[in-house]
Amino acid sequence: MTLPMTVPAPGLPARVRIHEVGARDGLQNEKASVPTRVKAEFVRRLAGAGLTTIEATSFVHPEWVPQLADAEELFPLVAGLSGVDLPVLVPNDRGLDRALALGARRVAVFASATESFAKANLNRTLDESLAVFEPVVARARDAGAHVRGYVSMCFGDPWEGAVPVHQVVRVCRALRDMGCDELSLGDTIGVATPGQVRALLTALDGAGVPTPVLGVHFHDTYGQALANTYAALQHGVSTVDASAGGLGGCPYARSATGNLATEDLVWMLRGLGIDTGVDLDRLVATSVWMAEHLGRPSPSRTVRALSHKEQ
Amino acid sequence: MTLPMTVPAPGLPARVRIHEVGARDGLQNEKASVPTRVKAEFVRRLAGAGLTTIEATSFVHPEWVPQLADAEELFPLVAGLSGVDLPVLVPNDRGLDRALALGARRVAVFASATESFAKANLNRTLDESLAVFEPVVARARDAGAHVRGYVSMCFGDPWEGAVPVHQVVRVCRALRDMGCDELSLGDTIGVATPGQVRALLTALDGAGVPTPVLGVHFHDTYGQALANTYAALQHGVSTVDASAGGLGGCPYARSATGNLATEDLVWMLRGLGIDTGVDLDRLVATSVWMAEHLGRPSPSRTVRALSHKEQ
Repeated sequence: MTLPMTVPAPGLPARVRIHEVGARDGLQNEKASVPTRVKAEFVRRLAGAGLTTIEATSFVHPEWVPQLADAEELFPLVAGLSGVDLPVLVPNDRGLDRALALGARRVAVFASATESFAKANLNRTLDESLAVFEPVVARARDAGAHVRGYVSMCFGDPWEGAVPVHQVVRVCRALRDMGCDELSLGDTIGVATPGQVRALLTALDGAGVPTPVLGVHFHDTYGQALANTYAALQHGVSTVDASAGGLGGCPYARSATGNLATEDLVWMLRGLGIDTGVDLDRLVATSVWMAEHLGRPSPSRTVRALSHKEQ
Repeated sequence: MTLPMTVPAPGLPARVRIHEVGARDGLQNEKASVPTRVKAEFVRRLAGAGLTTIEATSFVHPEWVPQLADAEELFPLVAGLSGVDLPVLVPNDRGLDRALALGARRVAVFASATESFAKANLNRTLDESLAVFEPVVARARDAGAHVRGYVSMCFGDPWEGAVPVHQVVRVCRALRDMGCDELSLGDTIGVATPGQVRALLTALDGAGVPTPVLGVHFHDTYGQALANTYAALQHGVSTVDASAGGLGGCPYARSATGNLATEDLVWMLRGLGIDTGVDLDRLVATSVWMAEHLGRPSPSRTVRALSHKEQ
């Protein structure tokens, strides 16, 4: 493969860390039931394609997310992968206990920027949900774990519509103050546009939440994910969440399109001369393999283009 | 619809003219045969949605592009639309004669930035093809018509791979020197990334082809079209080609994904506070209506999201 041509643009990071969420955020939102051994093989293949941060699963109550009810079985199958960080989602104290008991070294909590989503997703007020996370984050850090804080609905909310920047900043500050090492700014319903991305990052800078601790997590519901990513890179963001093959989606969004596809991201970064360590051909092969298990084609345009047979 | 939130970004144009190519570039590359009266209704609905530049058809030899063999019947059906420019493609002198005889006031020629595509598409060398266009452009201007010059394969070529910037600049200069009023820089196979866009626009500036005469024409084959558009806007480009519903595609590309969808573009521009005059709901309704005629869903993510029934 000789394309894309590599032509850097000024002011972008030299290297981007891709936080691969396909095995957790992706499979969590897929209808098909995937056997544990296939999930483990998926994580192994993602690592084989050069991804070094692979969110593996969620230690949420099995009734809430049946797709990830096998976290206890899955994690030990992949924990030995060398050179790969395997963060896991922990919703509360009980989830943290389960994760730490299995030796997890990176955990993530999942907060909301809006009252409505806190209510819908966690059945708590926003402040109640933050109060639940505080001891979880403290105990995780005491145990030596790295903690990521997800902030969902940062750019729009299906119930509230527009989300004020100051509200997102408040939640980000609270998560940082309780000890989160990094934050992931989620456009959970995919409505953001580049000016919004820029404005939020600028506001966070001004509020003492510096860009190096931030990742961005865009959904492609309206086709905006990569343009927003480019805007974030221009602001200095160097951690980008993406899902191999574009797996998954948000059950609250108005269509089935989901996460930014890792392959579409890698194509852009490769063109920009930004190092990711990812072997695009192996990653595409992995997504094609997983699509066969799920019984539907990948929504990633790059996967489709590169896996299309030459005429 | 209250989303996206409108948050401008600095340095972007206040207004973007969308050059709608769905009826020509889109339908030209669709397999389904669309009746002339449906095409005319499509153009009328696009105008009703607020689009003011709608490329209507191509006066190419009917054997080359059978999908557009009804140009003579179609053009008079839409020519009376007020406040709408209706450019048409003319491949040569004969095509220009046919277009002018029907009262066309805007025409476009279709050049290539590479030898391989000139050969494949026009069966001529690059310089031979430019020599064919020279009298066409001159006669069109003598007749008072506005002339657009398409430059295809500006960012990569399926046979040659990388395309040197100086080669694109040479073709753009030649088209300007022969009198083209505007140029459209085509990423015909969808491989471009934002650094390339920036580099080409900068080189053209330096070679006396100023940004105000330029439009950009991106394909979404690898999901890059909107990120590239954002990079072009940042350089001051204010004419963007797009295809309603993402209709069409390039027969030489490695997958069926085609033009940047007008709806995905309008979503971003609306979020950025950039005026387009387009009513997004009416445009989505038009694309859904056309998708029914074509017998397949629109590939536009915004069309899918906004036409999805609420659960």
